[in-house]
Amino acid sequence: MNDVPAPLRVAVLGCGVVGTEVVRRLLEHTAEFSARTGADLELSGIAVRTLTTPRDPVVPTDLLTDDAAGLVAGADLLVEVMGGIEPARTLILDALRAGVSVITANKALLAQHGPELYEAADAAHVDLFYEAAVAGAVPVVRGVRESLAGDRINRILGIVNGTTNYILDEMTTNELDFGAALAQAQELGYAEADPTADVEGLDAAAKAAILASLAFHSRIALADVSVQGITQITPADIASAAQTGHVIKLLAVAEQRRDGAGQGGGVAVRVYPALVPAEHPLGNVRGPFNAVLVEAEAAGTLMFYGAGAGGAATSSAVLGDLVAAARHRVSGGKSPSESRYADLTRLGADEIRTRYQIRMEITDRPGVLAEVATAVAEHGVSFETVRQQGQSGGPAELVIGTHEASESALAATLTALDTLDVVPRISSVLRVEGI
Amino acid sequence: MNDVPAPLRVAVLGCGVVGTEVVRRLLEHTAEFSARTGADLELSGIAVRTLTTPRDPVVPTDLLTDDAAGLVAGADLLVEVMGGIEPARTLILDALRAGVSVITANKALLAQHGPELYEAADAAHVDLFYEAAVAGAVPVVRGVRESLAGDRINRILGIVNGTTNYILDEMTTNELDFGAALAQAQELGYAEADPTADVEGLDAAAKAAILASLAFHSRIALADVSVQGITQITPADIASAAQTGHVIKLLAVAEQRRDGAGQGGGVAVRVYPALVPAEHPLGNVRGPFNAVLVEAEAAGTLMFYGAGAGGAATSSAVLGDLVAAARHRVSGGKSPSESRYADLTRLGADEIRTRYQIRMEITDRPGVLAEVATAVAEHGVSFETVRQQGQSGGPAELVIGTHEASESALAATLTALDTLDVVPRISSVLRVEGI
Repeated sequence: MNDVPAPLRVAVLGCGVVGTEVVRRLLEHTAEFSARTGADLELSGIAVRTLTTPRDPVVPTDLLTDDAAGLVAGADLLVEVMGGIEPARTLILDALRAGVSVITANKALLAQHGPELYEAADAAHVDLFYEAAVAGAVPVVRGVRESLAGDRINRILGIVNGTTNYILDEMTTNELDFGAALAQAQELGYAEADPTADVEGLDAAAKAAILASLAFHSRIALADVSVQGITQITPADIASAAQTGHVIKLLAVAEQRRDGAGQGGGVAVRVYPALVPAEHPLGNVRGPFNAVLVEAEAAGTLMFYGAGAGGAATSSAVLGDLVAAARHRVSGGKSPSESRYADLTRLGADEIRTRYQIRMEITDRPGVLAEVATAVAEHGVSFETVRQQGQSGGPAELVIGTHEASESALAATLTALDTLDVVPRISSVLRVEGI
Repeated sequence: MNDVPAPLRVAVLGCGVVGTEVVRRLLEHTAEFSARTGADLELSGIAVRTLTTPRDPVVPTDLLTDDAAGLVAGADLLVEVMGGIEPARTLILDALRAGVSVITANKALLAQHGPELYEAADAAHVDLFYEAAVAGAVPVVRGVRESLAGDRINRILGIVNGTTNYILDEMTTNELDFGAALAQAQELGYAEADPTADVEGLDAAAKAAILASLAFHSRIALADVSVQGITQITPADIASAAQTGHVIKLLAVAEQRRDGAGQGGGVAVRVYPALVPAEHPLGNVRGPFNAVLVEAEAAGTLMFYGAGAGGAATSSAVLGDLVAAARHRVSGGKSPSESRYADLTRLGADEIRTRYQIRMEITDRPGVLAEVATAVAEHGVSFETVRQQGQSGGPAELVIGTHEASESALAATLTALDTLDVVPRISSVLRVEGI
């Protein structure tokens, strides 16, 4: 530490909103990065697909290159913010194998190919950091991977996709329908032209897989996550939720069911829209913000909250990781390896229990409630609340809140309700969380 | 990494509520700690003052010792949860010099002797971790020290003392006076028999010094923090705050004022009770919970929330640090060194600006407002709101909300008001935050 270490060469892959902010801060705060890491961080180049795309003037034209592989080869530290599976995967693997530390924001890549990346990082004894892959600037990856490494996490409940939270919030606050709220999110840059990954819950599912893998010390892949998006949520769902003081949020839910000895058991990792009490900490998360609740045996419930997306916020997470990786270059050390010793398996539909709200049209005549109640009880599902609401001129509606029920019992109940003449239509089935 | 590493010997200093929980988890989750760190963690002993004190049966009697120095000498990792300055300081320094990694929860020691501890840790290239010293299980130390290491923190605003938050919450919710709320906190174990450190704000000040040192890369000692506790807060203050939708919270506030180039400037680190809007994230923090808002240039506002005290919650933070330190033993690396390159100085009273609420008794006759307004305006303080409230039978009261004013301007204003015949008494002066 007495010798001045050589400058560390930082290669950046991708120059979109995040890449631009990373470049801006690296160039503008040079002295601070040197002081904080103990070495100069030298931006060695920025790989882009098309050199001629117009860019923010902060990006030095002479650092742009379309030879990503060549750029990676000469780097000490690699920042990957290009997204997508290929060529990001190959470039990162090549970098790790060549002894380059990697910081990536690529949730899809990690959720699908995490183990392969971890193995390459371990073999070369270099860093693999990815705070920016989950919830933008919110430091929940480090929180789960490091701060809670001495605790037992039981459950994670989070709003990890800002686009869908913005859409649901607009549907709630301004009574828009899904299409109008989506169009507004696209106009404001919160949603992409093709919003599928966000609104179908796939982006949240990738983040859930990453967090669950860390929390439960197991390999949870994207394919292990059951996913339901928000495209089916209607203004009627939102209005009905509001009648009981709830809002609808797209949640990533990861939980471990332990066996009697507190060990083993299994995990369930799911993404779904759910009713959350408006006064619950997650009910208060507005617009494009993210929040993650972590329930741990010793720590109790912790909450992490902040901006879940955006170039500047995401760059904060990337640069925090970059400083950590640079410090390791200067004074030794390495990011934690993949922790998968627990090797938990997925819980079956019989083992996963949630509360549900079932909203159905009914024929408004005496005896209906008894028929519905019988059908529900036959499958071991019990009511917590029943509410009948009629829309003026429209059909009568019955809203049932259940106690905790297994997914399989719920499915059987829905099938039974579907056969009843007095229930022309099941309007919606939503989980209830946060009680 | 292919050889099985030797077990790591963990010495624990102190066996109060936190020490007991640390011991419990180390003994009960042995396999998990081994899997997560790559080495067995072997509890080598627990140093206590009095061997014969009755203890939780989870604590193995044969591991107790009153020879703390001897225990430390044979350890790889030291957990210090005994508290107080001496002998904790000497034991930790001896441990660090002997190459033992240290995890401490000792906020007072860090706030007063942090630099000395850092230097010893650096000289021996071992770890000094202290997540548990601030906000219990809430991982704000790692958040500020590592996650935000690539960002510029502008301000930290936190509820970091659970005892005072509980007391203020009880005063608000159940209309108790300070004494009754304190007695209740003591009964429930939230406040100690001698509550001075909590209610006078000293505990919060130590935590503020620790967070500010990390956030602003400067040495901020306990003596640099200006402190005001909650012993003067009356039911009338609480009631008056409620009339405008505010609650009173004891806040730790640390901020950096930058010069034009965005560099340098100075810092102000203060602890004071302040009015916070009830619907603000900090306004919602109930009972003994803690929450810390961190405002950073790129990340925006992040919030960390959770249990700020208690044996189990604090042990989670201690054990997270223990895992990190053990991982370093196994595969290299070290906790970040002290970062003090910025070397910022304290801002003067002219440079610190806040909004204030001044509540005063007035003689209820025409012209009073004009006299008060003139006295205030003469010192460059401007009104944002004025409200007159009479208590039935009591004197008339004037409540002034100011725009941002410097501490020196406010002091001059108060002196001027004090000379007015129409103001028999200034009842309270409180800052307003969170807008």
